[in-house]
Amino acid sequence: MLVVKIGGGSEIGFDSFIADIKSILEAGEQVVVVHGGNHEATRLSAELGRPAKFITSPSGFTSRRTDAQTMDYFMMAYCGKVNKRLVEGFQASGVNAIGLSGIDGSIWKGSRKPAIRSVEQGRVRIIRDDFTGKVEAVNVELIQMLLGAGLLPVLSPPAISSEGQAINVDGDRAAGLTAAALQARSFIILTDTPGLLRKFPEESSLISNIPKDRIKEYQQYAKDRMKKKLLGAEEALELGLQQVVIADGRSHDPVSSALAGGGTHIQ
Amino acid sequence: MLVVKIGGGSEIGFDSFIADIKSILEAGEQVVVVHGGNHEATRLSAELGRPAKFITSPSGFTSRRTDAQTMDYFMMAYCGKVNKRLVEGFQASGVNAIGLSGIDGSIWKGSRKPAIRSVEQGRVRIIRDDFTGKVEAVNVELIQMLLGAGLLPVLSPPAISSEGQAINVDGDRAAGLTAAALQARSFIILTDTPGLLRKFPEESSLISNIPKDRIKEYQQYAKDRMKKKLLGAEEALELGLQQVVIADGRSHDPVSSALAGGGTHIQ
Repeated sequence: MLVVKIGGGSEIGFDSFIADIKSILEAGEQVVVVHGGNHEATRLSAELGRPAKFITSPSGFTSRRTDAQTMDYFMMAYCGKVNKRLVEGFQASGVNAIGLSGIDGSIWKGSRKPAIRSVEQGRVRIIRDDFTGKVEAVNVELIQMLLGAGLLPVLSPPAISSEGQAINVDGDRAAGLTAAALQARSFIILTDTPGLLRKFPEESSLISNIPKDRIKEYQQYAKDRMKKKLLGAEEALELGLQQVVIADGRSHDPVSSALAGGGTHIQ
Repeated sequence: MLVVKIGGGSEIGFDSFIADIKSILEAGEQVVVVHGGNHEATRLSAELGRPAKFITSPSGFTSRRTDAQTMDYFMMAYCGKVNKRLVEGFQASGVNAIGLSGIDGSIWKGSRKPAIRSVEQGRVRIIRDDFTGKVEAVNVELIQMLLGAGLLPVLSPPAISSEGQAINVDGDRAAGLTAAALQARSFIILTDTPGLLRKFPEESSLISNIPKDRIKEYQQYAKDRMKKKLLGAEEALELGLQQVVIADGRSHDPVSSALAGGGTHIQ
């Protein structure tokens, strides 16, 4: 079994991705797809006249400021447009995909942060009306049931809190926990670079291998959203996952290339 | 088993609806929910500066003009906001709902109309780039599997065409076919009137009973969107369904009231 995370952005070609996943399914491997939608959510927010805001935590991770209205936009972009257009693409290629958010069937259950800390002009501000959180449990039984019925699960944030509220969770980290929970043989994170770069944005500086016990040292090379991809990888490996690959989503056969040795392998 | 169709509009209280469905589930009945999203899709289109257009067919039925961009908005409103907020509400009340569109797992498979006819200023115009169609098959096996796992399916348009394209289908008619395919004991359509009114909008003119073989005669009393509700009822009854109720979604316990005799009963 593979768990593959794909961004929702414009730089990754859905058509090549879908064709590649189809060939992997035909070879008899089970696959679970997880996608993002950051680009679409940001664009929709801007078009609706309420531009997205991002928060930087004291430890340097960025996340979307998610008040109740932003959650509406988030659902529209992630669960509406990106999820359904991706599922439609799979259906058109003959793959019976089923698109679900982490809310549906409590696939991703987690906790909402009672408060988040935001660094603004050097000062830490506390925000309490934010719907952000962390996945803590994956409904493995439901995913296995869908796989057993020959369906391709296509999963998207948000997740559901223990109080039953939709929470914005990081897609890379949610995918990592899903891969670990399903005991996948590999967790592949597709991005718009060849993998982790020692000298971002120099593509020739690709780091091909990272021993899993040294992953923390490599956070120094991660820029922006790559930080969470490494964190997602680290969390999944700590839970017993054997292999994570951060690979180029722009290539013709992004998942097969990653399995064949492309990208940054962490094992 | 019950199939309940609820509008996506503002006049129907989701909280009362959710509480009522919960009590019915607790009494041991299986339920499938189908929802609309017309109000949200129209609002979103307007907010995004591309107001919705509606087409009237030569036979007098209205439907949304759905080009590719409108389908994006449609997915955002129906599958994003309305579906996920409804599922979230069920989760918060302790019901393990699972939100799916007709695309997902090919729940609603249908055909896209190669051309649609629009009456404009007395003349008929042919439109060929529209993504509108009709549900022809319901994936009963998948719905039964979800019900068997203790989940509450919450279904939404669009459907998927045999070529794998998302198509805008009428929610009332899709729900009717679903009720017939599942051999539900009742198909309940909630709306923002007490039922079918002989003298719309006089609420005291409620038609309480319609013999199922006389349903066509009653189309004369249907205004606007009520026409499709009657058509959905008619199609479901033709397929062997025993009972359709068109009932008031604004009441405190809309589904229980309908089962207890409220609204317009067609049987």
